[in-house]
Amino acid sequence: MSDSWLIYFVTLSVLLQIEWHTMKKHNFSAGPSILPQEVFQKASESVLDLNQSGLSILEISHRSDAFTEILDQAKALVLQHLQLENKGYHVLFLQGGASMEFCRIPQNLLSVGGTAGYINTGTWATNALHEAKLWGNVIELASSADRNFSYIPKNIYIPSSLDYVHLTSNNTIYGTQYRNFPKVDVPLVCDMSSDIFSRVLDFSVFDMIYAGAQKNLGPAGTTLLVIKESILGKTQRTLPSIMDYQKHIAKESMFNTPAVFSIYVSYLTLQWITNQGGISKLEKINRKKAEILYNEIDRNPLFEGTADRADRSLMNVTFVLKDSQHQQRFEELCVSADISGIKGHRTVGGYRASIYNAMPIESVQVLVNVMQELEQQV
Amino acid sequence: MSDSWLIYFVTLSVLLQIEWHTMKKHNFSAGPSILPQEVFQKASESVLDLNQSGLSILEISHRSDAFTEILDQAKALVLQHLQLENKGYHVLFLQGGASMEFCRIPQNLLSVGGTAGYINTGTWATNALHEAKLWGNVIELASSADRNFSYIPKNIYIPSSLDYVHLTSNNTIYGTQYRNFPKVDVPLVCDMSSDIFSRVLDFSVFDMIYAGAQKNLGPAGTTLLVIKESILGKTQRTLPSIMDYQKHIAKESMFNTPAVFSIYVSYLTLQWITNQGGISKLEKINRKKAEILYNEIDRNPLFEGTADRADRSLMNVTFVLKDSQHQQRFEELCVSADISGIKGHRTVGGYRASIYNAMPIESVQVLVNVMQELEQQV
Repeated sequence: MSDSWLIYFVTLSVLLQIEWHTMKKHNFSAGPSILPQEVFQKASESVLDLNQSGLSILEISHRSDAFTEILDQAKALVLQHLQLENKGYHVLFLQGGASMEFCRIPQNLLSVGGTAGYINTGTWATNALHEAKLWGNVIELASSADRNFSYIPKNIYIPSSLDYVHLTSNNTIYGTQYRNFPKVDVPLVCDMSSDIFSRVLDFSVFDMIYAGAQKNLGPAGTTLLVIKESILGKTQRTLPSIMDYQKHIAKESMFNTPAVFSIYVSYLTLQWITNQGGISKLEKINRKKAEILYNEIDRNPLFEGTADRADRSLMNVTFVLKDSQHQQRFEELCVSADISGIKGHRTVGGYRASIYNAMPIESVQVLVNVMQELEQQV
Repeated sequence: MSDSWLIYFVTLSVLLQIEWHTMKKHNFSAGPSILPQEVFQKASESVLDLNQSGLSILEISHRSDAFTEILDQAKALVLQHLQLENKGYHVLFLQGGASMEFCRIPQNLLSVGGTAGYINTGTWATNALHEAKLWGNVIELASSADRNFSYIPKNIYIPSSLDYVHLTSNNTIYGTQYRNFPKVDVPLVCDMSSDIFSRVLDFSVFDMIYAGAQKNLGPAGTTLLVIKESILGKTQRTLPSIMDYQKHIAKESMFNTPAVFSIYVSYLTLQWITNQGGISKLEKINRKKAEILYNEIDRNPLFEGTADRADRSLMNVTFVLKDSQHQQRFEELCVSADISGIKGHRTVGGYRASIYNAMPIESVQVLVNVMQELEQQV
């Protein structure tokens, strides 16, 4: 093997590496969505060999020391990031997505003859409410359906007789997000699928938080639940085992084989959050990203936002072209700039830029540049 | 950068590669379990960049063309391998593991006032039966609990009035497997979690087959279901959406975000099965592996099998040391030989060598060598 061949080989490797980084798209997908590059890198290595164990993360037993340590550390990091340590909360990683929890929540929290209250701020909130009705009385406490879910209802009256109140902190499809949460004196359950770990809150006002992993946490396939144990066991129902939060807590997320890889990648992301300086640091960057993009939407005469300004989401920025004749050109410019996943949900139309924790500020700038380029071209 | 440095660099890369292959363990874990090395390799690459798309398999939308193609091809391969094409079967990839199906099956198949029949051949069959009781009448048609599930009951009477019959084709914990399935004239539902794609059967005798992916198919996190649509919609029950097979069929496994990565790896494994020559070819190798191991268990005076010979599993080989004083030495020899995951389930004790599709015959031989080494040493 000649030395010149070696030089060629190494040069090629370096070029391929550069090529790969150059080729990386700006992924604005609403979910599954971008995760940190370091997480992809470590996950890729562990699919071949988990920490020099001689085994892939895909083939290790969920009862192995290697995995139970990953699971325990992931749980600890969740409580740490949410500042919920030693406050009676349990962390679960289950399967089925948030939609499965729409089905589990009323079974676990809605007593026979009791009533639950749901605040309806979008498609997912509607689905959650709809599924709960199978188990008893459900009140829609407030709804923003009258203006296509473009705002968050305020000053909601919440009866203290309710078994629990359910709300959706961020509405992925409609680009709205709660700034302040209603004060309640009943258990408060929050679907944080699309904004968990993105901003500092007093998480202890919630009795249950849940989130499909596939936005700020990990790949699709696991759902994070943080539950105050004191709210469970009060419904007088006999539950199927797999529906019973108390059983899952007793078995520490190992009632049956958990989604090992999705939990592992979530663990890597939780570590990344720590390395970034925690949620408070990420929140600052998230606010900056959102500011850059909303400023451009408000400034650029071709675009307008779809959500009320006061309720705009820091995670999902929804906007439309005022004149649909520019649609083709705008989308072509996006493609040339390697922007991916920008199309709005069919119920809102237009565009949606999801700028989750892992989205670099540079990618947001690329989108803003494209919006400005369109303005110059038309 | 000097040429000598380059030589050092390349040599190191090659050595690391060799080191990695040398270090690979012989993974006899019951599940999650070994998958083909080519699958690990390709999956690892796709976590960085899926087919030069500039996106990781972990960040692509489940509604992207890239993923819908993966899902469609995976479904087609399932039907092809099982020879169930054009026979009215639908393929689903859901979440929650087989335990979730224990809960879904009666809701979808047990009519109000009807009766289901379960054949009880082990822990998982017991769990399936137990969960079904929440929805109505359930008969235990036969059980091998009297001898710690060490055999498969034969000549079972099955009333034709049942809504369905449920059985477990392979019992991972107890190392037993059906050779012949009972003839029934009601819908037949089979949990094939631990032996799907391992042998040729007339799969069309089953009206529903399901399998947690984490043995012969993929990583934990998705469950394969193959359902004849004609058996559905007959229970007169109102089901939660996520529990309703008809809804999942209508939405083609996209009722909510599916476990993208687990499905992708399953797809890679299904392709690998094709490349190996299909199930019939794998069955020959599986029979050879089982023969080598059972022959040694029967020959070696230190060991004995725990399952009845006629019902021995081709996938999970359960055995014990006749004299427990050799336990420490045997386990030390296993560790030195890089054998992993051989410990039996706590309800059986002893040892369990899971020799799924992806387990190379060479690894089985390593285990046999260790058993022979023990014999020589004591």
